[in-house]
Amino acid sequence: MVHIPNEPVPSPSAPRSVPTSADVARLAGVSRATVSYVLNNTSAVRISEPTRRRVHEAAKELGYVPHAAARSLRAGHSRMVLIPTPNVPVGPLYNQFFNELQWALSRLEYTVVQYGDLSPHGDEAARAWAELRPVAVLVPGGGLGPQGLAVLKRSGARAVVTLGAERVEGAHAVLLDHEGVGHSAGRHLLARGRRAVGVVVPEEPGLEMFSKPRLEGVRRALQGTGATVTELPLAYEEEAAARLAARWRPLGLDAVFAYNDEYAMLLMRALQDEGIAIPRETAVIGADDLMLGRLLRPRLSTVHIELPSGRDLAELVDRAVRDPGVAPEVHEVLGTRVVQRESS
Amino acid sequence: MVHIPNEPVPSPSAPRSVPTSADVARLAGVSRATVSYVLNNTSAVRISEPTRRRVHEAAKELGYVPHAAARSLRAGHSRMVLIPTPNVPVGPLYNQFFNELQWALSRLEYTVVQYGDLSPHGDEAARAWAELRPVAVLVPGGGLGPQGLAVLKRSGARAVVTLGAERVEGAHAVLLDHEGVGHSAGRHLLARGRRAVGVVVPEEPGLEMFSKPRLEGVRRALQGTGATVTELPLAYEEEAAARLAARWRPLGLDAVFAYNDEYAMLLMRALQDEGIAIPRETAVIGADDLMLGRLLRPRLSTVHIELPSGRDLAELVDRAVRDPGVAPEVHEVLGTRVVQRESS
Repeated sequence: MVHIPNEPVPSPSAPRSVPTSADVARLAGVSRATVSYVLNNTSAVRISEPTRRRVHEAAKELGYVPHAAARSLRAGHSRMVLIPTPNVPVGPLYNQFFNELQWALSRLEYTVVQYGDLSPHGDEAARAWAELRPVAVLVPGGGLGPQGLAVLKRSGARAVVTLGAERVEGAHAVLLDHEGVGHSAGRHLLARGRRAVGVVVPEEPGLEMFSKPRLEGVRRALQGTGATVTELPLAYEEEAAARLAARWRPLGLDAVFAYNDEYAMLLMRALQDEGIAIPRETAVIGADDLMLGRLLRPRLSTVHIELPSGRDLAELVDRAVRDPGVAPEVHEVLGTRVVQRESS
Repeated sequence: MVHIPNEPVPSPSAPRSVPTSADVARLAGVSRATVSYVLNNTSAVRISEPTRRRVHEAAKELGYVPHAAARSLRAGHSRMVLIPTPNVPVGPLYNQFFNELQWALSRLEYTVVQYGDLSPHGDEAARAWAELRPVAVLVPGGGLGPQGLAVLKRSGARAVVTLGAERVEGAHAVLLDHEGVGHSAGRHLLARGRRAVGVVVPEEPGLEMFSKPRLEGVRRALQGTGATVTELPLAYEEEAAARLAARWRPLGLDAVFAYNDEYAMLLMRALQDEGIAIPRETAVIGADDLMLGRLLRPRLSTVHIELPSGRDLAELVDRAVRDPGVAPEVHEVLGTRVVQRESS
């Protein structure tokens, strides 16, 4: 029951007069194959300089742009590294890491494309990414399953790297251990003689993937020491911080790990407005080691987090693209060290 | 002098066994045209439900993913909105605007792809963007010329929108007037009775496009009033701020527009460390109205900047895609209002 019309229906929205490689071939007086060889810089075929020049000039005159996808099919693979936009709010630390990674990949002649699908990065999303035929895919934050991985590989992705807490069998993994961030903070507060530690847990959706392991890390650091852990849900708003500060003294805490430097700044202002002395009454430590922490009064102690270097990650991608048969690499990263300043 | 080998040279890196629509057609027992009609949801052709189901099942079984570019050629255009990654450091304000825009576009069923070329957004870059065959391109920060615009249009982009200080003939323009930010700050400081105004000019490369018009705006606000403007180059580093603060009193300033809230935070801490009373000796105003300004002591006055709404911009893109023949729209945006707090 298939009805195919006799003539193709021209799409009313098709752009008119997009120049094709046939137009370039005609103008340059060469075959389409030659146009393709010249514009794709194929080294397998020897083409004289004058011919090359003629093709380039004709392409320029017509404003011909080769189609990336068609070109990638001919070349065997594209140079596109697709990175889905993280679907959680990212801070300055991720931005910096991402910029570094982008630079490192562009030095290796890859083009980074950030794909903004804004949905969970599940197998469904992988199909959409696959349509762009990237040569490599970097997935931050988890959600990719074995099926999505298979779709990506079948569509020509030579390297798939996940960045997060979990591994996907068959993909390279850069494991980010946020538990260690909390563990460092907890150990530090313990070493400073604190026994009743509050842990800020942001209420903003999407941050659980970081806040839960950080909380667990504090718990592990304090286990068996007799010190206590109190979970402190907090929205990133002045009013919420003021409410928490108003009931601070009855909580009986002598220290707080504030999730990160921005929440620490928010909470510290509110505690000070309540007349709570920092660090005498309550020690405060953040995480991320942002500039703003250094500018506070007292200067904020923090857990400095070493994200994977953009260069190392770019090189991992490049290795995998060159040799897609290589066994998946697993790297555990996220080194931490405490930077003690005046607030703890 | 063209040597073409007799047989196509198989690329050693070509991914093996990527399923094609021919494979799907074979498994489903239909023609390739039918596969194409079904998977592209073409409404011009009536195809029975069982046939549709058979095609979908075959595609799923084989893990076939249609090629975005091929699909867009058939459909007449893609749903991809390409936005080159800004090649200047962006702050939380741009991030927020971008997220909003991305949401608004995805509600209109566009997919946002951020293209990370990291080079100036000139005509050369436009050729690279054109290779992805986007249906619309949004260029932040300028650099696109008439040639680049022509390349994009010829390759099928139905809407090209620039976001910045300059217009490109033939493209839609959202004009961002940073001069107005400085003008608001200057007028405010004047109204507070200040007569000797410093203006921070960040030394970080790439920010001139914002800092120059902001400086000019302060000059314009103070013109003919007898008040003076002093340019203050400043790197975003504590040491640089301390050096500037150490020579503050000889400068004889009674106010400073600190470029934005982050530089204001940096400078304010350094001035206070020098014992300079804010706002009594020196009034301070930032820009961007970030949360951190509200948390400082004294709370920071700021110029609140209204970026174009992501929804309005998404709707402009959609209008232009639906009717590419429409005359270019020009919108002047970047409303400003001063939020006076304690520092001025």
